Amino acid sequence: MNRPHKLADEAVTSRLTALPGWAHQDGKLHREFRFADFSAAFAFMTRAAMRAEQLDHHPDWFNVYNRVKVQLSTHDAGGVTELDFLLAEAMNGFAAGSANQ
Amino acid sequence: MNRPHKLADEAVTSRLTALPGWAHQDGKLHREFRFADFSAAFAFMTRAAMRAEQLDHHPDWFNVYNRVKVQLSTHDAGGVTELDFLLAEAMNGFAAGSANQ
Amino acid sequence: MNRPHKLADEAVTSRLTALPGWAHQDGKLHREFRFADFSAAFAFMTRAAMRAEQLDHHPDWFNVYNRVKVQLSTHDAGGVTELDFLLAEAMNGFAAGSANQ
Amino acid sequence: MNRPHKLADEAVTSRLTALPGWAHQDGKLHREFRFADFSAAFAFMTRAAMRAEQLDHHPDWFNVYNRVKVQLSTHDAGGVTELDFLLAEAMNGFAAGSANQ
Repeated sequence: MNRPHKLADEAVTSRLTALPGWAHQDGKLHREFRFADFSAAFAFMTRAAMRAEQLDHHPDWFNVYNRVKVQLSTHDAGGVTELDFLLAEAMNGFAAGSANQ
Repeated sequence: MNRPHKLADEAVTSRLTALPGWAHQDGKLHREFRFADFSAAFAFMTRAAMRAEQLDHHPDWFNVYNRVKVQLSTHDAGGVTELDFLLAEAMNGFAAGSANQ
Repeated sequence: MNRPHKLADEAVTSRLTALPGWAHQDGKLHREFRFADFSAAFAFMTRAAMRAEQLDHHPDWFNVYNRVKVQLSTHDAGGVTELDFLLAEAMNGFAAGSANQ
Repeated sequence: MNRPHKLADEAVTSRLTALPGWAHQDGKLHREFRFADFSAAFAFMTRAAMRAEQLDHHPDWFNVYNRVKVQLSTHDAGGVTELDFLLAEAMNGFAAGSANQ
């Protein structure tokens, strides 16, 4: 995929209405996921890692036990792009797929 | 955990009634899991890998795309032991936790 | 990537000279990897899984403890294709990167 | 393992001499690891995750691309314990095993 361009704030806000749990702040998308335990959290991270490699676009993320705090932005574009939405949507799907969340 | 001893065939058969999907054949427990796709299958394997390391007891397993075929036995004991049931139970839990199965 | 076509046996044989450890048999590429322990083997599998998702091309593989036995072929093409070489080359790189092999 | 007790600052400082790369600050052990790329970083995290589950003791960690920033402490004990050293030592071993670091 060609590196996409930065989305305008209004476009980000509009798309977030279809992306439960995520917020737009400081030029990044933010969400914190909670799971039943570390095992479920790390399985989620593994799926997200595979998707990130597919997209060649990687998260900033922090994990402690059952929590995974994620920040997404596209450094080259200086803000949020289509790539961030693709990764965020995948993460929501993976988290929804976990009965342990 | 001390290395457990081989369970008698009757004990294995009895315990399998509480372990959906598994069969006892050739001195091993067998099950094939199916998931929505490779991503869900490998997330399952990652959770099972963590549990295997916890138990210091590892599966024989084969994966192709969304399928994971597992064989469990305890080599030192020459058959099926408590350790195999612990790993099989964990695997069933992880698979049940995947909405993608 | 467009699904590539099946490579002629001579082309496979020729390319295998640059791919240590792999053999061509029954229309598939075969290699068995050995690592220091399960942890190193599963870390290798995790890297290979990410690469497989990138390529949208997945291995047939079998793991028991520190061994990972891999078969690669492209079902749609009825044999070995460029995709199999891409995955095999990545696997060799990941295995070489493991000091535990 | 019984939950271990908090180590005195002098004991932590002394043990750190045998643990390259780690620092003791604010009641925690800290280290930042760098790898060749995301794939190598996440393989390291996978091995550390398996070890964490074995120890039933988990890191606070942050990853972005090829970097993994780790903080270890034992919440129940209010500081650094033997468990933190066991996990830190394992992480150093896994990182050393990666030719991509």
